[in-house]
Amino acid sequence: MPKTRWLSAEEERAWRRYRRMRTLLDLAISRDLRQDSRLSEADYDVLSTLSESPNDSWRARDLAARLLWSTSRLAHQVGRMEQRNLVARSGTDTDARGAVVALSRHGRDVLETAAAPHVDSVRRNLIDLLTPAEVKALDRIAGKVVDHLQTGDV
Amino acid sequence: MPKTRWLSAEEERAWRRYRRMRTLLDLAISRDLRQDSRLSEADYDVLSTLSESPNDSWRARDLAARLLWSTSRLAHQVGRMEQRNLVARSGTDTDARGAVVALSRHGRDVLETAAAPHVDSVRRNLIDLLTPAEVKALDRIAGKVVDHLQTGDV
Repeated sequence: MPKTRWLSAEEERAWRRYRRMRTLLDLAISRDLRQDSRLSEADYDVLSTLSESPNDSWRARDLAARLLWSTSRLAHQVGRMEQRNLVARSGTDTDARGAVVALSRHGRDVLETAAAPHVDSVRRNLIDLLTPAEVKALDRIAGKVVDHLQTGDV
Repeated sequence: MPKTRWLSAEEERAWRRYRRMRTLLDLAISRDLRQDSRLSEADYDVLSTLSESPNDSWRARDLAARLLWSTSRLAHQVGRMEQRNLVARSGTDTDARGAVVALSRHGRDVLETAAAPHVDSVRRNLIDLLTPAEVKALDRIAGKVVDHLQTGDV
C-alpha cells in the first residue's frame, strides 16, 4: 500500500469547514422548510423533482435514480406522502420499481406555496452570503466532485 | 412579505450541484469507511473528536456541541460504541449531559488504523480533484456559511 499523503493544514481546514457547512446548512434548510411549509427536505425534493417532469410524474425507479436514493427509501417516502395526499402512485403492484409516482393537485399547491420561502432560505443561508465569483467557484467545485463520483470512478 | 428574488440560472445550478455533491460525497465517504474500517461516519466523527482532546475525553454535552448533535443522538451513538468497546462512559448517571465520554484503548487502535484509508478516501473523492485555489475557495465559502449559521443569525 502506498504511503499515505496526509492532508496539509489548509486541506484539513477546508475539509472540516466543508463538513461543518454541510451539517449546519442541512439543519437550517430543514428547519426553515418545516417551519414555513411543514415539509421535510425529502418531501420537497420529491415534489420538486416530480414537478420537473413534463407530466408531473416519473417511474419510481427513475425518480429514485434522480434523487440518488435506493428504491426502498423511495417507496417508504412515497408511501408517507401518499397518505398526506401529496403524490399518487399507480401501475403494477407486483413491481414497485415499475410503478409511476405522480404529483397530486394538492402536492402541486403545496409545492407552489413552499417554493418562495424555500428560495428565501437558500438565499439567506448560502447564496446571498457569497460573491458571484464564489457562487461560480462552488458550482465548479461541486461539478468536479459530481462528475468524478457519477462516473463510478471512485 | 417582500417579493421573492428567485435564483438566477447560475445560482440555481450552483445550489443543485452543491446538493448533489453533498449527497454523492456522503455516500462515497461512508461506503469507504465501512468497507475499509467497518466504521460509520458517526463512529469516525466521535473517535476523531475524542482524540483531539488532551486526555482523549469530553463531557457528553461538549462532545455533542462539537459534533452539532443533540444530546439524545449522542447518547444513542455512544451507547452503541460502548458495546463495541470503542469508548467508555463514566460520571453521573443522573445527568447524562454531565457524563464523560472517553476513547478506549481499542477505540484509539481502531481510529489509528482507520485514519490512513479515510484520508485516502477524502483525497480521492474531494481534495485531489481540486486545484489549490479551489481548495482555498471551498474553505472560504464554507467559512462564510459556518460563521453565518453559528452566530444564530439565520
